[in-house]
Amino acid sequence: MSVDPVLKRIDSNLQDSLDRLMDFLRIPSISTDPAYKADCDAAADWLVADLTSLGATASKRATPGHPMVVGHLDGPGPHLLFYGHYDVQPVDPLALWDNDPFDPKVEDTPEGRVIRGRGASDDKGQLMTFVEACRAWIAEHGSLPCKITFFFEGEEESGSPSLIPFLKDNAEELRADIALICDTTLYDSRVPAITTMLRGMLKEEITITGPSRDLHSGMYGGAAMNPIRVLTRIIAALHDDEGRVTVPGFYDGVHEIPDEMRAQWDMLGFDHTAFLKDVGLSELAGEAGRSALEMLWARPTCEVNGIGGGYQGAGFKTVLPSQAHAKISFRLVGDQDPHAIDQSFREMVQAMLPPDCDISFNSDGAAPASVMSIDNPMFETARKALSDEWPDEAAFIGSGGSIPVAGYFQSLLETESMLIGFGKDDDQIHSPNEKYDVESFHKGARSWARILDALSKE
Amino acid sequence: MSVDPVLKRIDSNLQDSLDRLMDFLRIPSISTDPAYKADCDAAADWLVADLTSLGATASKRATPGHPMVVGHLDGPGPHLLFYGHYDVQPVDPLALWDNDPFDPKVEDTPEGRVIRGRGASDDKGQLMTFVEACRAWIAEHGSLPCKITFFFEGEEESGSPSLIPFLKDNAEELRADIALICDTTLYDSRVPAITTMLRGMLKEEITITGPSRDLHSGMYGGAAMNPIRVLTRIIAALHDDEGRVTVPGFYDGVHEIPDEMRAQWDMLGFDHTAFLKDVGLSELAGEAGRSALEMLWARPTCEVNGIGGGYQGAGFKTVLPSQAHAKISFRLVGDQDPHAIDQSFREMVQAMLPPDCDISFNSDGAAPASVMSIDNPMFETARKALSDEWPDEAAFIGSGGSIPVAGYFQSLLETESMLIGFGKDDDQIHSPNEKYDVESFHKGARSWARILDALSKE
Repeated sequence: MSVDPVLKRIDSNLQDSLDRLMDFLRIPSISTDPAYKADCDAAADWLVADLTSLGATASKRATPGHPMVVGHLDGPGPHLLFYGHYDVQPVDPLALWDNDPFDPKVEDTPEGRVIRGRGASDDKGQLMTFVEACRAWIAEHGSLPCKITFFFEGEEESGSPSLIPFLKDNAEELRADIALICDTTLYDSRVPAITTMLRGMLKEEITITGPSRDLHSGMYGGAAMNPIRVLTRIIAALHDDEGRVTVPGFYDGVHEIPDEMRAQWDMLGFDHTAFLKDVGLSELAGEAGRSALEMLWARPTCEVNGIGGGYQGAGFKTVLPSQAHAKISFRLVGDQDPHAIDQSFREMVQAMLPPDCDISFNSDGAAPASVMSIDNPMFETARKALSDEWPDEAAFIGSGGSIPVAGYFQSLLETESMLIGFGKDDDQIHSPNEKYDVESFHKGARSWARILDALSKE
Repeated sequence: MSVDPVLKRIDSNLQDSLDRLMDFLRIPSISTDPAYKADCDAAADWLVADLTSLGATASKRATPGHPMVVGHLDGPGPHLLFYGHYDVQPVDPLALWDNDPFDPKVEDTPEGRVIRGRGASDDKGQLMTFVEACRAWIAEHGSLPCKITFFFEGEEESGSPSLIPFLKDNAEELRADIALICDTTLYDSRVPAITTMLRGMLKEEITITGPSRDLHSGMYGGAAMNPIRVLTRIIAALHDDEGRVTVPGFYDGVHEIPDEMRAQWDMLGFDHTAFLKDVGLSELAGEAGRSALEMLWARPTCEVNGIGGGYQGAGFKTVLPSQAHAKISFRLVGDQDPHAIDQSFREMVQAMLPPDCDISFNSDGAAPASVMSIDNPMFETARKALSDEWPDEAAFIGSGGSIPVAGYFQSLLETESMLIGFGKDDDQIHSPNEKYDVESFHKGARSWARILDALSKE
């Protein structure tokens, strides 16, 4: 089975593929809003029907939330688990969209043709690149070169509440030689990428309580404790002057990146000045002595995502508030242990509390970093296949964000993940006027065809 | 003219005096709410009529806001300017009142009889103590022992926007030998007080701007500057470990209290444990080595009255916000210069800003502290007269709050103020179920009768 006719078929069938994607995009499968429950169900049905049309054994699987879709197609090569999600982000503020977000269009822009609509990139367009590659293989050769299990989720944009139980209950059916996740970006328009490092996350909301009620600062100011002052002292103490996090033991399990990876990242020529300028900044504000890509992909962080206390309206109320609170999140890398760090963070904060202060912690989840085993030869095979399709060599990159499903595949299915996606930073996912480049869609399908071919020859 | 029959008349006419106050309290003269404009006018008319019934030349004076009331009664002794305000606080939340706030009642409580209703203490009940003392003097002796100018404001609870221009325009008419302000409290039920120190105030809202828009902490966290972190570092740096304010030059003009005042305050036996316990606290949180009364009356403070930035709703958004803000107020004492401190504060904050940070300052007013000249013998005369009326000796005390009118009398009329009031800390002014003890009202009027007598003999 040769890949060349498959690639030609992908080219000649591009309009059909786009039409199918448009159909899929018209379903407003917003998972966070109960008003769209039937639409989420319809999107799952659409996928079952499409997989069935390929000859797959596919079905919708009920969960307490939105259904999962699982489908199987046999093949001689390794067993690949392909993951994507059919649910999309809400569309508000609707007024900022130039068109109806669920009436998708192909538009010509100065930067090329784009598919415009909610979900075009995240993640319907991305997941269909893989389905279209499979369709072309089957149309050309009657079957696939690898054994495929499709696994589509409908709750990715609403915290994936059903994911862990579903993976536990269906581990035997879903376990594979490797998982392919299509929910990430290219490094840039010329350089495709396999994301091999994802930061983990630890989130804690802290609330500090001092006086039993809000106090008048004329009557009590100077004698009574102010929880905002306590909170700001704690937050200010979380970093040292070099920008390092001061929580004891925080850097346990943080590894320096290997020399060859550092060399490869250096070759990417990341322009941090342009990156920062785009958001009104000019200087890196992270750990002293680290490159921008290290800060973003390979170093852990502590950030305050929100803070509040006292009077925040117009004008002044000279109040000493009873409470102040902050939302603090840590991005984790390497082998950092979220639970050990959480414990250490709580102890550090407790030790800083003055008398008369109570604190409550409200944990909002903890997940370790995912670091893929790029020693697995499949990574290099896939990297070469990607490099054949795109102008420049494919890169192994990191990601500052978190894609928890990769960690769950690792822990619950013992299956490593390769994250390969064709999105671009300007796709405006989660924002109005989301788009996906037609080139991403087209060359994405061609990339998967090449990857299936290459992995089947391992 | 002897004071004894005046005191007897106040006793025998108490019910009439209470009935008059009830009439006055039925007028809902809420100055902040335009819906009550006619009621504010009616309260001013009521006062003009009452003063006229005493034989005063009284009139309502228009301002761009609510009217002032000015009245004159001649007498042989020194010229006294008496100040009170006829406007009252809003009544919301109305549901927390046991009765209609504008249908006042005299109630028997375990702690004694009280007048219940909005304005009972703040400030209609208080100002009527003086008017009733004058009425009894005139009824008994046909005239007053001192020359009196009554000056009643209707905008005290809404920031007194017309006060400064009115004082400037009418300085000749209002200037007196001393001003008497009845809008403060007793030290406690046994100890009457003359408030001789009022803290000043400086208010600044600061807003720190970093990135030009909110950023995703996965994409930018670790590399981009977070304005919440900058803000918390600034606030944490405003106090040293001893609780002293670190703004350069902040303590210029702060004087140690004189030894005799310290001795007198020590004699008051202030129970700071009970004071703090009442609001759920146990330890003083102010400057190390200072007594509670010093912290509250004689030391300057820096407090954060509000802070906000980033996501404050339920759950988490892993955002690096574009902005963070805080409302910071300073209570000032002695000869501290609000403008010099504001300048120094701004320079200190500016110097702490990292690159890429903008800051905006929004000043919300600055007023120096008021320190009365208790060397003026009228203070000791009034203190002795008060001591004759109450179980224990009267005290010269400080107040943590600010009563700006005393400062304006000083600067615009060159008239010193004596602040003498009969409110109690549990009067619930500005809150539901406001009350004024009948004892405060009755002994308040008797106190003024004695003070008029004593001052006339200076």
